[in-house]
Amino acid sequence: MPLNKEQNDEVEQLRASSNTTLRATVPSLEEILYKPLPALDHGFVRVIDYMGDDTAIVQSARVSYGKGTKKISNDKGLIKYLMRHWHSTPFEMCEIKLHVKLPIFIARQWIRHRTANVNEYSARYSILDKEFYIPSVENLASQSQINKQGRAENLSPEEAKKVIELLKSDAEQTYRNYEVMLNENSDGETLDESSMGIARELARMNLTLNTYTQWYWKIDLNNLLHFLALRADAHAQYEIRVYADIILDIVKKWVPVTYEAFEDYRVGGTQLSAKEILILKKIIKGETVDPDAEGISKREWGELQKKFDL
Amino acid sequence: MPLNKEQNDEVEQLRASSNTTLRATVPSLEEILYKPLPALDHGFVRVIDYMGDDTAIVQSARVSYGKGTKKISNDKGLIKYLMRHWHSTPFEMCEIKLHVKLPIFIARQWIRHRTANVNEYSARYSILDKEFYIPSVENLASQSQINKQGRAENLSPEEAKKVIELLKSDAEQTYRNYEVMLNENSDGETLDESSMGIARELARMNLTLNTYTQWYWKIDLNNLLHFLALRADAHAQYEIRVYADIILDIVKKWVPVTYEAFEDYRVGGTQLSAKEILILKKIIKGETVDPDAEGISKREWGELQKKFDL
Amino acid sequence: MPLNKEQNDEVEQLRASSNTTLRATVPSLEEILYKPLPALDHGFVRVIDYMGDDTAIVQSARVSYGKGTKKISNDKGLIKYLMRHWHSTPFEMCEIKLHVKLPIFIARQWIRHRTANVNEYSARYSILDKEFYIPSVENLASQSQINKQGRAENLSPEEAKKVIELLKSDAEQTYRNYEVMLNENSDGETLDESSMGIARELARMNLTLNTYTQWYWKIDLNNLLHFLALRADAHAQYEIRVYADIILDIVKKWVPVTYEAFEDYRVGGTQLSAKEILILKKIIKGETVDPDAEGISKREWGELQKKFDL
Amino acid sequence: MPLNKEQNDEVEQLRASSNTTLRATVPSLEEILYKPLPALDHGFVRVIDYMGDDTAIVQSARVSYGKGTKKISNDKGLIKYLMRHWHSTPFEMCEIKLHVKLPIFIARQWIRHRTANVNEYSARYSILDKEFYIPSVENLASQSQINKQGRAENLSPEEAKKVIELLKSDAEQTYRNYEVMLNENSDGETLDESSMGIARELARMNLTLNTYTQWYWKIDLNNLLHFLALRADAHAQYEIRVYADIILDIVKKWVPVTYEAFEDYRVGGTQLSAKEILILKKIIKGETVDPDAEGISKREWGELQKKFDL
Repeated sequence: MPLNKEQNDEVEQLRASSNTTLRATVPSLEEILYKPLPALDHGFVRVIDYMGDDTAIVQSARVSYGKGTKKISNDKGLIKYLMRHWHSTPFEMCEIKLHVKLPIFIARQWIRHRTANVNEYSARYSILDKEFYIPSVENLASQSQINKQGRAENLSPEEAKKVIELLKSDAEQTYRNYEVMLNENSDGETLDESSMGIARELARMNLTLNTYTQWYWKIDLNNLLHFLALRADAHAQYEIRVYADIILDIVKKWVPVTYEAFEDYRVGGTQLSAKEILILKKIIKGETVDPDAEGISKREWGELQKKFDL
Repeated sequence: MPLNKEQNDEVEQLRASSNTTLRATVPSLEEILYKPLPALDHGFVRVIDYMGDDTAIVQSARVSYGKGTKKISNDKGLIKYLMRHWHSTPFEMCEIKLHVKLPIFIARQWIRHRTANVNEYSARYSILDKEFYIPSVENLASQSQINKQGRAENLSPEEAKKVIELLKSDAEQTYRNYEVMLNENSDGETLDESSMGIARELARMNLTLNTYTQWYWKIDLNNLLHFLALRADAHAQYEIRVYADIILDIVKKWVPVTYEAFEDYRVGGTQLSAKEILILKKIIKGETVDPDAEGISKREWGELQKKFDL
Repeated sequence: MPLNKEQNDEVEQLRASSNTTLRATVPSLEEILYKPLPALDHGFVRVIDYMGDDTAIVQSARVSYGKGTKKISNDKGLIKYLMRHWHSTPFEMCEIKLHVKLPIFIARQWIRHRTANVNEYSARYSILDKEFYIPSVENLASQSQINKQGRAENLSPEEAKKVIELLKSDAEQTYRNYEVMLNENSDGETLDESSMGIARELARMNLTLNTYTQWYWKIDLNNLLHFLALRADAHAQYEIRVYADIILDIVKKWVPVTYEAFEDYRVGGTQLSAKEILILKKIIKGETVDPDAEGISKREWGELQKKFDL
Repeated sequence: MPLNKEQNDEVEQLRASSNTTLRATVPSLEEILYKPLPALDHGFVRVIDYMGDDTAIVQSARVSYGKGTKKISNDKGLIKYLMRHWHSTPFEMCEIKLHVKLPIFIARQWIRHRTANVNEYSARYSILDKEFYIPSVENLASQSQINKQGRAENLSPEEAKKVIELLKSDAEQTYRNYEVMLNENSDGETLDESSMGIARELARMNLTLNTYTQWYWKIDLNNLLHFLALRADAHAQYEIRVYADIILDIVKKWVPVTYEAFEDYRVGGTQLSAKEILILKKIIKGETVDPDAEGISKREWGELQKKFDL
């Protein structure tokens, strides 16, 4: 179970005392506030706080465009218009704060999105918990030869089992030696009275990259959608996609109109190059197309065929 | 009065319907939510939304430092510690959204703070209101000869009166011609049926820099404090300081413990150079100090004397 | 002429002394270094410095992807791949510094791109030159009724002439009163020995928004391309597009391979929504399409028809 | 040796062909361009490119302040003035690009500085080299009890030796199993023809945090100085300080005047709170001071005494 007793008590306590506010409030998000939504084997995502809703986006947009946008009377229409024309600033007016527990190698991908605020658990100050991500059998796959950064077929059950055992035993052994070097276990007990132990900032280097860390992560809706467009995508690594999918679901509860526009214009949409537009025009006119003559690569041509059932 | 009837109705409507939330809530900020706090002759600051409070800062810091900071049991002590050691990320966990009406020449200074989200009223889409900032007599002062970007003595009442009249008549005339060029007044009435008028994005160039604009401005607490340290300072231009002082007051209501630490460590504090430290050490030891020999400029020496009543 | 004598002498001096460097160097950019490229009636763009070239982008990408991208042996192919898959970080590895002179109302649009470094001429410190942007007759157009932020037909020569005269006389009058209030003209001469004049930070508020300002603007190539995608677009205001087109030309000289990929994938490309993909698929299959039934707006349908000659 | 043969050949090749440029050039930085400056046991810092010099900072500042700053005729004086008054934008006008090889646990600290451009070696695309950071005996120290994130005394040689052996054997074992899971060694040879191996993006999770990674890191001088103020500080972890000290030395070669001002106003300087100013004033006046009555903590009082030899 992802939260320890102390944390669970805190969740219950926070959910027990409600306040009165004049701020924009989203009941369906209030329902899950503070609650851990499980991710992978030991991770979670929790909504800690949020600011704004679909109406706040509309309101900000109307300040910008003034009387000039009175014509788009409908809120839904205005949000679709903003999404379609990449008017990003109104979406920046909403903010969300999440508490996320995740393996370090995923945290390293995640942090590459710089436009967010982060408070990570510091292994210089405190000892990391003994929790590692061990993939399940169905998520162990071989290296893709086509996609240099992707996965191909699943391993045989035997090979998968062997990999899982290696991951487990290495993580446990390095953690055990982490404690030995600290001369302290995760309960704060000294292991050997005759030795000093090394500083936490040093000992942590012995841990493997599947060790779990956690952080508070705060981001505006515009940058969050950008994160989701990349990380909920089929090309993203499975382990970060698990988190992105949970967050997509949070976004759906939080700003349902924006979510719908995002699905239509970003997730389900596509980008075409000038050359691809020309090719499609020819196809529509019934002309035959020679991709080489059009100057696009085999890969691009293959993807275009797939996208439009050519 | 800064808000028009439509806007006032909106404030009343927003303040009439309260919601229940599990989020951190600050009663003294709720009291002023949506209400315009007047600034200069036609401007205002309104708090539209906020996220977090002093406790949220402490909570984020404790996630970072884990069990390691249990020692600083006191919340106030922890916030002071964070402020003192420039640990900025916990303060980034709070966010505020303001609606500000301000003269364009001040908006140009303000926008230089890049780490904020902004939705400004667009004069490409809509016609700007006929409102200009005209300084009051006591705020009209001559150019400082010492501080290249500052003011010195006040003008004589006669000269002040003359300046005010020039500012008024030029602003009114350029606004009148703005309407003529648009061929439309601010009520949307056509002025001359036989002419076309020019596009709003063009006509606006005829307006003077004291014309009022407005925007939604959203920023995290850490960057807001940085803004305030610069703009509530005695060296800031009076007109932006008026806004900074109002916001300082909002911060005091919002996060009183952080406000206190900010006053102690930033606003009332000072930065000393290596050379100034050496000089103070000598003075404390009772040695005589020759500023030239110590390698500091006359100006630095003067400021040091003033700071420490030397 | 945009540069004054002093500035011209500086350009000649800077261009007279060449250095030897081991850094990536772009001869076609060196040819125009420091030289003012005219924009509008008094503005210009000058390249002051640059870092990196097409090869630097490739080199950075190869560090990221390591041996894994050996397959894309061709530099041009790799840059196209990066552009197509929105891999933005390698493009961030190039940087350019420009000196730009531009009207204030355009500077206000420009500065909304926050991810750049800016040093603007300060009218708190110094007196602004007597230079205003006055549009030429062919750039004066009426307000578009379809595009709320755009222009429609050109004015009649008579109306255009009238507008130009209003713009000129208002700019000149407000500048004259700026000098009166400063009690100083732009040559630094005192106007009236018996009056004090007001501070520069105050007097500037009397100037109109078409007054020219100038700044040093430094930005990385990725953010610059984003700026150009928005500001060299047909929907951008003509006056900023003039600057964007000049900068596009600079980019072409600087990183020709990147420029070509940018033209293909961004400028000439397009974004399709999920619904638009479905519609195109139907059209390709020869089915008839009812835009209403597909759930897209009239405007979207019109634009789609135009894009693909439907 | 930090660079492999291929990389060394590239350095020599890059240093062999010099170009002619009109850009600002710094001979003492050209001398070390591309060359690896060793850090820790397998790491390095290399200067790959740079933009600007001390003169560029002055030039940008003069554009901002115009004729208004003619008075500060001296370049050195102007840079000191800018540093002292925290005028950060002119320092943003210089940029540097570094190639850094560093252990992952240090990379995780480093990346928290968000205002930089980064291209990191991707272990999704490519296999990481078999290189781990193993501290030397004199850098192994026990946990500080005063500073929750620091080190205290050095370990006994016996305990140090034991720790080093644990770090080595765990890193080697996990790397060996990394190869087993990949079914490929770092030379690209398949280990077992009968097994598939898992994807690189998965296998990497078995590596320990002292494994080396590398990246291109580009940052402006203002943000670099902020990074150095934090990371070259005595409170920073030793391992990141090693890199910060190397970069400080690079800054000294690059912009010697700025470096000197930075040393005086930042590195050697200090920040005093309002309360500390009051206390110093009393001490200067010869009054006795009771820290409790002044409202400062024991720790603050201790640090103040140390700073001023009280």
